[in-house]
Amino acid sequence: MPGRKKAYNVAIAGATGAVGEVFLDILAKRNFPVALLRPLASARSVGKRVSFRGTPVAVEELGENSFEGIDIAFFSAGATRSREFGPAAARAGAVVIDNSSAFRMDPEVPLVVPEINEPRIADWRKKGIIANPNCTTIVMLMALAPLHRAFRAKRVVASSYQAVSGAGASAVRELEDQVRAWAAGKPLEAKVFPYQIAFNLIPHIDDFEEDGFTKEEMKLVNESRKILDDYALRVCPTTVRVPVLAAHAVSVTVETAEPVTVESAREVFEKAPGLQVMDDPGANKYPMPLYATGEDDCFVGRIRRDPTVENGLTFWVVGDQLRKGAALNAVQIAEKLVEKYL
Amino acid sequence: MPGRKKAYNVAIAGATGAVGEVFLDILAKRNFPVALLRPLASARSVGKRVSFRGTPVAVEELGENSFEGIDIAFFSAGATRSREFGPAAARAGAVVIDNSSAFRMDPEVPLVVPEINEPRIADWRKKGIIANPNCTTIVMLMALAPLHRAFRAKRVVASSYQAVSGAGASAVRELEDQVRAWAAGKPLEAKVFPYQIAFNLIPHIDDFEEDGFTKEEMKLVNESRKILDDYALRVCPTTVRVPVLAAHAVSVTVETAEPVTVESAREVFEKAPGLQVMDDPGANKYPMPLYATGEDDCFVGRIRRDPTVENGLTFWVVGDQLRKGAALNAVQIAEKLVEKYL
Repeated sequence: MPGRKKAYNVAIAGATGAVGEVFLDILAKRNFPVALLRPLASARSVGKRVSFRGTPVAVEELGENSFEGIDIAFFSAGATRSREFGPAAARAGAVVIDNSSAFRMDPEVPLVVPEINEPRIADWRKKGIIANPNCTTIVMLMALAPLHRAFRAKRVVASSYQAVSGAGASAVRELEDQVRAWAAGKPLEAKVFPYQIAFNLIPHIDDFEEDGFTKEEMKLVNESRKILDDYALRVCPTTVRVPVLAAHAVSVTVETAEPVTVESAREVFEKAPGLQVMDDPGANKYPMPLYATGEDDCFVGRIRRDPTVENGLTFWVVGDQLRKGAALNAVQIAEKLVEKYL
Repeated sequence: MPGRKKAYNVAIAGATGAVGEVFLDILAKRNFPVALLRPLASARSVGKRVSFRGTPVAVEELGENSFEGIDIAFFSAGATRSREFGPAAARAGAVVIDNSSAFRMDPEVPLVVPEINEPRIADWRKKGIIANPNCTTIVMLMALAPLHRAFRAKRVVASSYQAVSGAGASAVRELEDQVRAWAAGKPLEAKVFPYQIAFNLIPHIDDFEEDGFTKEEMKLVNESRKILDDYALRVCPTTVRVPVLAAHAVSVTVETAEPVTVESAREVFEKAPGLQVMDDPGANKYPMPLYATGEDDCFVGRIRRDPTVENGLTFWVVGDQLRKGAALNAVQIAEKLVEKYL
């Protein structure tokens, strides 16, 4: 790490959640220069320990005074906690990298996918906060952004297939418990989701807005525009929860301003950092959660010319929701931050 | 049944398969006037019996001579069997109602969803064959067809979420076995599908064509055009297998020639036979496989104006693949056939 300091004091708010665990793993694996690690969670997790580089570290209660001496505070404890404690962390001198939706649309908060709009990290100074985008938005943009740069996307129709991990560790347990109950011939219990998710599809993620779209769907619209810095981009989204554990998939159909072919798109995808082209139908090679889970890169395949418009492409992109969709992207932001600014 | 005969001799080719079982159930429940039932299957099923109206009936081997004295022959044993034995059945005097893809695009074979294009049944005389459309196409069209009639659909982007039952009874067992193996901590075996389907998504249904679309995807394009009798309709499809047992879902985004609103679309959907509107997001009401499985009707919800085009709508439709997607639609064709022609 070519940062000015040798190592940084790092807090993780939400350290015991699904994303929190992946944060610890990724910080260790990528050798992020951590001097001190402070895992934070709600009061009921106090007494627990998390493991960082093989060492147990006691969880502390997340509060106003959690951030003294902290350089970087990763938040992954939901939008309410981010709103409550994020500004306090920034006032205490930490740079907040927030995984929730709390500050994403704040014009003074940069919304960053390093492969796409890294220079925006410079705006961290405005509020001391950098927002990590919605997981499905990141996965979609890892393929859509390079395509947009090369051929200018005008209109996108996106249908998502979202893993339960996007709803947290308790949602992962719920699907696992339902599957075990089903195998044992017992009734299935639903608490996290409004309905059984095992063997089912729930076209309802986050709250509904007045026009019938969900907040999750509007994140795909609004965050894509902000990250691509193109407010003329039109996106028609449908987001659906599927009985998959950790990787999100998106079926993306895009109309472009410039002519696009399968070959020219593939060339663009192949050069895109963080994206692997997996598209050899004859050999049954296409992206799937089975492959993408646990991987840092996102995978694009099923690349086809959309013959229903003059210039268009349709493709299928899959990425690990907990990694590139959450913790990995946040750590990549932190890496660039310490490299250039801290 | 107001047919001229009092009752009909009915053969079911593929009687021991996933759809075959549902055929027997639906013929009984709808009181289809069956005089004689002849269940047909491959040699390895001879010796088995199927249950029809509580009575066991011996399975016979499907062959050239299986159709003597038969009035109506339902085929649901795959396209190869339909090509091999369908014409023989028709020559023997049976009207073939074929659930496979074998004859769907034959210009002399009507392709029928009774709620949409019932009058085409009259063309049964040309070859003695009526084709039952692809399951996903039927489910999508149950909502799209009335919308098309009211507002003229010009372009459709469709992403499917298809249950394993579409790949037959062995595929249903495969998902069930994988889930049981997972719960028991054992390795998962994949034979029917190229990969594990439990906790996974496979964007590959039927064979791939040269342009990267699958044959399943092209069924959505070509069968929709034939059934709607509108060869100007453009469809950009993506079909995906999901770990769901029996109901297919489709996310449909449609550009129309005429202006469409959520209210006007809902009115059209509410009047459409065989379709139920389930669209009350505030009460968490939207179509799901959990509701649609075992139901005759298809369900439409998540009805939204598509704000990215001048005239457009996006919605989510779910239907039981084995019922309206297969056996029910075929029996409904048979009901109209005996009512009007036999």
